[in-house]
Amino acid sequence: MSYNLLKGKKGIIFGALNESSIAWKVAERAYDEGAEIVLTNAPFAIRMGEIDKLAKKLNAAVISCDVTSLDDIEKLIKNSMEQFGGKFDFILHSIGMSPNVRKDIPYDNINYANFLKTLDISALSLHKILQTCRNYDAINEWGSVVALSYIAAQRTLDLYNDMADAKAILESIARSFGYIYGREKFIRINTISQSPTRTTAGSRIDAFDSLFDFTDRMSPLGNATADECADYCVTLFSDLTKKVTMQNLFHDGGFSSMGMSQKAKRQYEKSFEDTQEKEKT
Amino acid sequence: MSYNLLKGKKGIIFGALNESSIAWKVAERAYDEGAEIVLTNAPFAIRMGEIDKLAKKLNAAVISCDVTSLDDIEKLIKNSMEQFGGKFDFILHSIGMSPNVRKDIPYDNINYANFLKTLDISALSLHKILQTCRNYDAINEWGSVVALSYIAAQRTLDLYNDMADAKAILESIARSFGYIYGREKFIRINTISQSPTRTTAGSRIDAFDSLFDFTDRMSPLGNATADECADYCVTLFSDLTKKVTMQNLFHDGGFSSMGMSQKAKRQYEKSFEDTQEKEKT
Amino acid sequence: MSYNLLKGKKGIIFGALNESSIAWKVAERAYDEGAEIVLTNAPFAIRMGEIDKLAKKLNAAVISCDVTSLDDIEKLIKNSMEQFGGKFDFILHSIGMSPNVRKDIPYDNINYANFLKTLDISALSLHKILQTCRNYDAINEWGSVVALSYIAAQRTLDLYNDMADAKAILESIARSFGYIYGREKFIRINTISQSPTRTTAGSRIDAFDSLFDFTDRMSPLGNATADECADYCVTLFSDLTKKVTMQNLFHDGGFSSMGMSQKAKRQYEKSFEDTQEKEKT
Amino acid sequence: MSYNLLKGKKGIIFGALNESSIAWKVAERAYDEGAEIVLTNAPFAIRMGEIDKLAKKLNAAVISCDVTSLDDIEKLIKNSMEQFGGKFDFILHSIGMSPNVRKDIPYDNINYANFLKTLDISALSLHKILQTCRNYDAINEWGSVVALSYIAAQRTLDLYNDMADAKAILESIARSFGYIYGREKFIRINTISQSPTRTTAGSRIDAFDSLFDFTDRMSPLGNATADECADYCVTLFSDLTKKVTMQNLFHDGGFSSMGMSQKAKRQYEKSFEDTQEKEKT
Repeated sequence: MSYNLLKGKKGIIFGALNESSIAWKVAERAYDEGAEIVLTNAPFAIRMGEIDKLAKKLNAAVISCDVTSLDDIEKLIKNSMEQFGGKFDFILHSIGMSPNVRKDIPYDNINYANFLKTLDISALSLHKILQTCRNYDAINEWGSVVALSYIAAQRTLDLYNDMADAKAILESIARSFGYIYGREKFIRINTISQSPTRTTAGSRIDAFDSLFDFTDRMSPLGNATADECADYCVTLFSDLTKKVTMQNLFHDGGFSSMGMSQKAKRQYEKSFEDTQEKEKT
Repeated sequence: MSYNLLKGKKGIIFGALNESSIAWKVAERAYDEGAEIVLTNAPFAIRMGEIDKLAKKLNAAVISCDVTSLDDIEKLIKNSMEQFGGKFDFILHSIGMSPNVRKDIPYDNINYANFLKTLDISALSLHKILQTCRNYDAINEWGSVVALSYIAAQRTLDLYNDMADAKAILESIARSFGYIYGREKFIRINTISQSPTRTTAGSRIDAFDSLFDFTDRMSPLGNATADECADYCVTLFSDLTKKVTMQNLFHDGGFSSMGMSQKAKRQYEKSFEDTQEKEKT
Repeated sequence: MSYNLLKGKKGIIFGALNESSIAWKVAERAYDEGAEIVLTNAPFAIRMGEIDKLAKKLNAAVISCDVTSLDDIEKLIKNSMEQFGGKFDFILHSIGMSPNVRKDIPYDNINYANFLKTLDISALSLHKILQTCRNYDAINEWGSVVALSYIAAQRTLDLYNDMADAKAILESIARSFGYIYGREKFIRINTISQSPTRTTAGSRIDAFDSLFDFTDRMSPLGNATADECADYCVTLFSDLTKKVTMQNLFHDGGFSSMGMSQKAKRQYEKSFEDTQEKEKT
Repeated sequence: MSYNLLKGKKGIIFGALNESSIAWKVAERAYDEGAEIVLTNAPFAIRMGEIDKLAKKLNAAVISCDVTSLDDIEKLIKNSMEQFGGKFDFILHSIGMSPNVRKDIPYDNINYANFLKTLDISALSLHKILQTCRNYDAINEWGSVVALSYIAAQRTLDLYNDMADAKAILESIARSFGYIYGREKFIRINTISQSPTRTTAGSRIDAFDSLFDFTDRMSPLGNATADECADYCVTLFSDLTKKVTMQNLFHDGGFSSMGMSQKAKRQYEKSFEDTQEKEKT
């Protein structure tokens, strides 16, 4: 189904690793809605993943970019503008990586070089992309930038580690730069705080399954999927949301506004009932 | 411009008084996007306003409804279902009235019968509409309800009076009922917290002009207009935002995330400069 | 242990039913800290409870007051001023009652007369008390008002019913009147959002036990007790928190900032493990 | 005036430069309330400032510490424990520095090495201190850590630059580590979001005066002073706030809950009136 919501628009999608990636779905949906796409990812992610498959399908260029490198970002922006034949209209930032999480280094015995790396890759990358775009005047007026975030920015989750802090600063950068890019070029910058999602990145979190189950039972509409996130991104890239900026938008089936649902409570209560039953026997 | 985003969808729009009303714009935009509309408003508002003009344009029925009356709401829902030939898909709640504000009764010498009336009309009306819809199973699964709110629900504004408290409870009802209607029928309920808007209702607020100017200068994208609000509503009624629920969504050009902008600060500083200049002379 | 934090201060405590009440503990702690107290409660609560026992202990007057009646509130304020020999310094509002909850009327089939009564008793009562105090100029400058709230004002809890909406408007009234009473008399008004607490009122909530257990495991410091809440209230009545106003202050062992704790997750996971074990047998 | 609220307690105060510093006032107040203090600051700040004067007054040791250096922090903690003869009870983190702000590098042309330095000094320092304390088991159970923050963490202020992002991550670290240190040792970690304050650090912000005036007129109680902040810190270090953790506590005379006050609006309106008057002449 297509509404041509993004007809004539052009955008760069960061972070499509494989077809379970949210960024992958966003690229597909944006293409369906009429957008022209440039795909980008880190060199190792391009090697590990299947981005070329997607590029073929969307008739999109793939430009390798290490988002910690300003040089790489400059090249990406310049090459994208050549691809597009000028300015573009939207960006999806779906980038997050914590060396501490990868190496199982706990938050209370953290490595600070890693911590800064987590912030650099997962959050400052958004600033670098925006600053570079601004320097090249690369984004059309009323353009739209979306970065994917997570509720860990507001509420602590066991084992989420320094990614929580990275998401907090990511959302702050969206506000800080959103002010500047908004007042000058009417470009809006928002974050989507997405449900836990079964992607390659998401499933790396320890004990993902029970968290996924819990948030699914807590959310009246259930967890939001990657496909649904792609739909939501399309509305934010479209001309119908021009005055939404500097916001963190929960896309989570209602989870963020729930204290306790009937479903989650019943499941939780089972943990006692069963014990009691077993104790009786 | 139409994307056919609401093709095949049907909805009830509360609160279109005249063409400066947000609800008026929403009805027009929803119609443009392919929706079938029923218009409703309070009897006196129908008499005072120009809703028939809109009804004609949108080929829509107008059903009178005093939202404090459960009987009226029942009739509205039943008649609407007859008009639509069955269930419908979305509702816009754009209703607010404070007898205390109307009668210039200040918040610190409030009349409590009026206060309860403000809450009944401006907030409990949402609950009454939803409960009646649920009783009649009137809304299709994955339907969408939007109520218009204002940042006074979070931050106190001089002279906004008991409407602030009404908006706070309106947003709470959206969450509370959003949980129930979500888990049962996947119906989502959100509020849009809109910029101050030059409508008949908005302009009634004392000192509206300076507030409007201030928020406009504070917001990097400027205040959001009624037309832009209508665009945003359309995305929330569409199938692209299915997992957004129980949220209060700021549609305000960034105002809610601003502490102080360059523009507003400069204007504020003028208030001193001029005085000083005058003092010099 | 006493610090004499409230030496020379005088205050009215609403809502001490019996010794499990938070208000009871607050009255005791305030007295320990040197305050002079007037106790008040609804007529039926005075009959049902044991407030006279407390009054004797604290050498305090008990003044009956139905908080929905402006006459009663006027008498209370006038009599309290006579008791105190003039103005007083602090108020605790610990009042909440929902006829819908009492009569097991669910939120989706609510009785609206009851709903308005819930709001009137649980929230507008704060406004009535404040407005009356202001009319009689009853509170000393830099006085402090605290109302007890609950996280249901922000996040929906199954079965909490219209008390959620009442807490939302209670917090809004604290802000709205806090602005007015602050600018005029430097009186601060805050709400404390307290952990679920084993009081007569608290335990009436259905499935209280599993909720209490869940929030206790989620909170790094465990649920806050009524005694601890009393300690916290004392700081807010003291001269050490003069510039804290219009805030909703979470007193909950960290619950409000938690997404998922190790302890709660482990308990939740048991609900599956046990089932699986049982299925195996 | 002393209540002996901190009798027998010991704590480390970071960031007392001179007597206009908030940390200076906190050290004095904590001492007045019976606490034993260790003072610390960066080597250059010790040279530039007057900390020795304070140390003499409070009979406190001064230990130099560059908070970006784990070695320095280790030494500080070890030396403090020697000074105290064992574990201690509280910490004040009042540390913030942005090389970008110092060098007038704007946020939209930021230097990223500086940006990481801002985060390292102003936010990761809190993590480093906490992790080192935890490694040495340096803080008594039910101890209390407070870090000073600013509303820029939630709302963008022109020219506040990367300090906004630093405050956002500071508040996130307080939550993240608050969870861990809470569940293990019942140690609470909070941030105070303080009004703009006339300190050496505060006054460095461009256009501080008009911002200070604006927030003062917006806040019903006026801006909170450094002395008042010290009072508030004392309550958070005391045993009366044991279950408050992972919170960002606004200490701002109500500013954070204000949308528009009468006073600020009137001043704002002057900026137009005067112009009009002048235009008339």
